[in-house]
Amino acid sequence: MTECIGAARAITRLSGWTETPGRDAITKAYKFADFNAAFAFMTRIALKAEKMDHHPEWSNVYNKVEVTLTTHDAGGVTDKDVALATFMDQAALS
Amino acid sequence: MTECIGAARAITRLSGWTETPGRDAITKAYKFADFNAAFAFMTRIALKAEKMDHHPEWSNVYNKVEVTLTTHDAGGVTDKDVALATFMDQAALS
Amino acid sequence: MTECIGAARAITRLSGWTETPGRDAITKAYKFADFNAAFAFMTRIALKAEKMDHHPEWSNVYNKVEVTLTTHDAGGVTDKDVALATFMDQAALS
Amino acid sequence: MTECIGAARAITRLSGWTETPGRDAITKAYKFADFNAAFAFMTRIALKAEKMDHHPEWSNVYNKVEVTLTTHDAGGVTDKDVALATFMDQAALS
Repeated sequence: MTECIGAARAITRLSGWTETPGRDAITKAYKFADFNAAFAFMTRIALKAEKMDHHPEWSNVYNKVEVTLTTHDAGGVTDKDVALATFMDQAALS
Repeated sequence: MTECIGAARAITRLSGWTETPGRDAITKAYKFADFNAAFAFMTRIALKAEKMDHHPEWSNVYNKVEVTLTTHDAGGVTDKDVALATFMDQAALS
Repeated sequence: MTECIGAARAITRLSGWTETPGRDAITKAYKFADFNAAFAFMTRIALKAEKMDHHPEWSNVYNKVEVTLTTHDAGGVTDKDVALATFMDQAALS
Repeated sequence: MTECIGAARAITRLSGWTETPGRDAITKAYKFADFNAAFAFMTRIALKAEKMDHHPEWSNVYNKVEVTLTTHDAGGVTDKDVALATFMDQAALS
């Protein structure tokens, strides 16, 4: 099983992510030019999540996407979350 | 401009939708077999929303999708929301 | 490595698939109500393909999707193609 | 109805597009880093196409997407095709 590293340590390895209040998880808000770009980003993440078998909690309103990551099996943030967060940051730039 | 009909009246024309607490909007929670089916549903709604130029507020966790609809320009629920909600219910069935 | 079973044998285990002329592959043409439904189907297949790391050759024109499956590493049709074809048939029904 | 401008004239207003052999249409082949990026591109185009009510003929093999554009109602290439082609080129860059 993937080991829990904790939100505080995870965010030091990422940019723009914060500790989710009330539980061991990390959160980031992304903003895109429009809904088209936001949903294309979500599609990239959906494909990656399915491949990793590790899925985000996320919400979308028009050009904004807010994501929370945690590993339910581990009871907190793991390397899997850092890997998915890193992929998201790269996908959001491109 | 599209006229506001209000959440209370809108939900009488729909099935499984409820009034969103605290503002004039309607909400429904959908559950699918898995993430694959949930995200395909979201893609159908994304395509429809772009076509209507009317977008949902929504969140997804694995096989669950929760949607809130309101028309910001009108300050409440309109026929546009009922139309998008009806489309969602049909897409969720298929 | 996945063993090649050949198109002729593969299609006996499927419905509506035919041998692709000129090479060891299988083909099927799907038709949907509209582009919205066709692209939602493609999204389901894209998510599954990424998960399997096994991708289709496919084309789309409005509500039609034509798919060809083969396993390049094996030089022909394998159980992976039958599995993806079976998933497609189920996704097209729903 | 949208007026036909012809493939030869259309490609002078675009970059990397060529006349499709045998009919009045324009074609371009895109290549991406991987399937993930290719399908995200396709999702952007799908959303735009639905909004414009103007759809491409396209095929995908892993990281490659080949597109052909023409306006069936007009019997050839129109400003709509140039607009969709321009959107595609911008989406492929980002």
